[in-house]
Amino acid sequence: MRIVITGGCGFLGRRLALLLLDRGTAQGAVDELVLFDNAPSALPLPDDRRVRVVSGDIADRDTVRALIVPGTDAVFHLAAIVSGQAEADTDLGYRVNLDGTRAVLDACRTIGSAPKVIFASSLAVYGGALPPMVGDDTALTPQSSYGTQKAIGELLVNDYSRKGFIDGRALRLPTVVVRPGLPNRAASTFASSMIREPLTGKEAVCPVAPDTVMALASPRGVVASLAHALDIDGAALGDSRVLQLPGYSVSVGEMAEALKRAGGAAAYARLSWQHDPTIQAIVGSWPPALVAPRAEALGFKPDSGIDEAIGFFIEDDLALQKTLAG
Amino acid sequence: MRIVITGGCGFLGRRLALLLLDRGTAQGAVDELVLFDNAPSALPLPDDRRVRVVSGDIADRDTVRALIVPGTDAVFHLAAIVSGQAEADTDLGYRVNLDGTRAVLDACRTIGSAPKVIFASSLAVYGGALPPMVGDDTALTPQSSYGTQKAIGELLVNDYSRKGFIDGRALRLPTVVVRPGLPNRAASTFASSMIREPLTGKEAVCPVAPDTVMALASPRGVVASLAHALDIDGAALGDSRVLQLPGYSVSVGEMAEALKRAGGAAAYARLSWQHDPTIQAIVGSWPPALVAPRAEALGFKPDSGIDEAIGFFIEDDLALQKTLAG
Repeated sequence: MRIVITGGCGFLGRRLALLLLDRGTAQGAVDELVLFDNAPSALPLPDDRRVRVVSGDIADRDTVRALIVPGTDAVFHLAAIVSGQAEADTDLGYRVNLDGTRAVLDACRTIGSAPKVIFASSLAVYGGALPPMVGDDTALTPQSSYGTQKAIGELLVNDYSRKGFIDGRALRLPTVVVRPGLPNRAASTFASSMIREPLTGKEAVCPVAPDTVMALASPRGVVASLAHALDIDGAALGDSRVLQLPGYSVSVGEMAEALKRAGGAAAYARLSWQHDPTIQAIVGSWPPALVAPRAEALGFKPDSGIDEAIGFFIEDDLALQKTLAG
Repeated sequence: MRIVITGGCGFLGRRLALLLLDRGTAQGAVDELVLFDNAPSALPLPDDRRVRVVSGDIADRDTVRALIVPGTDAVFHLAAIVSGQAEADTDLGYRVNLDGTRAVLDACRTIGSAPKVIFASSLAVYGGALPPMVGDDTALTPQSSYGTQKAIGELLVNDYSRKGFIDGRALRLPTVVVRPGLPNRAASTFASSMIREPLTGKEAVCPVAPDTVMALASPRGVVASLAHALDIDGAALGDSRVLQLPGYSVSVGEMAEALKRAGGAAAYARLSWQHDPTIQAIVGSWPPALVAPRAEALGFKPDSGIDEAIGFFIEDDLALQKTLAG
């Protein structure tokens, strides 16, 4: 298997690489794993002769054609400009999140072997007046450019799969918490920072009200879902290659309580609250509760809740995080 | 008012031009009306000093920037590659229906005055396993490239409106019957041909089963809806600038009966049936019944049915059609 991961030096891409190298896929072992990103990795990458790291611009069609060459079996397309930045810089967001996705899909089409494509979508595709149950059957009226671009990516994955150009799957990821590394320009970045920073001795600010409810999944769970999406049979997805992944619902206030349980009063004291109406509006437009019967029937597993997610962070990332926190 | 109509030499664009020149808009009289199309008009255009005809490629950004200049108050974006052709020629469909739409929206954004944009979408955005009631709240899983491109256009109109770059409205048009002119490469073209051709003394072939139910609107009704979309207040649309227009449901067999009522046994005898599974599959993926409560609350009017629609064709187009059929 030759596998390409775009955004491969990001925290999900890197961890997905480790999993695939370790475990292989249902289709066979990994012979070559290409990690593509716009900059060299800030985190240590696996020391494995099968890994190749390529830096470049995902929206440059020549670059992407040179990346997705004949013999490529699967592409995980994770590269994206995050929500807050795509909202602030419209041109950059469309360039990376729309033109970049088209470049990836067209390169896959060009090689002619209908490679598997696993596209990371987001619950930012939802928005506006939402029904109580949000999932595969919900009409999409995203309230951000990022959500718009992800919804467009889903449509393209469906059309290219229907025409036999790719064998695609688009997964709507819940908000991923606890994300390791540094805060970024995602509107949701606080949801990881408010756990991660206090647990590593740093201050964090929560910009939304404690009663804000979010639908979350852990990095460990999301990476397992991405790998599972490669293993399942595309035909089992039916008319739509888009799947809402399961997520658990938790209020930001409950997240703070879980921080106190995991890190004690000292960690809890490092969290302060400072309302940001822009962040509140974006996060408030996302669904607080998800239903994912199709994904669950296909074997995608939900996390149990915030305490488990914090436990995963402590097991998987805390030591590395402390070196970053330096 | 300076108004641009892309696809302005098509049958809807031309008739919309006549209506706007005659009646003006709620915002004032029309001072300049630019009809943009990829080829000179096959039909006679209004002889009016306010009209200017421009030919060019809608996907060429320089062309579109020269078309949508400062002072443009409204753009009707009707230009598109039709469904059958977009399915057969993937690159051309994406070039015109996606790149062209982005070129229009970006040109509107560049002039900085948030012009009104009325985008013609289609019920081809629906598909797959549909609920009994199809409309604004239905999740979109289009089963054609054309429907995919229209769904993407809707998302872009919403995002650009939300950001204040345009004041957009996207109307999901039912299948427009009876369309004048010549058969084209739309999968739905037979639905007009089976009425129009026999009424002008020509043979027609129906490629779908008589029990196939379609949701239709007349050209007169659709043009009135396009003009009405310019007149309404964008804020009244709320979180979504997309509106399902009302349509009436009729089986293809009932359409043949209505042809007999309007044109007699001689006209009816000119219609033959020859099944085409490709056309049947595309048309069968469209919703047979529509609900449009938001559009109706905003004053968009449905047609009464197929007999009225045939009457409109006879009143509005039959004389001109006979010169084409000549």
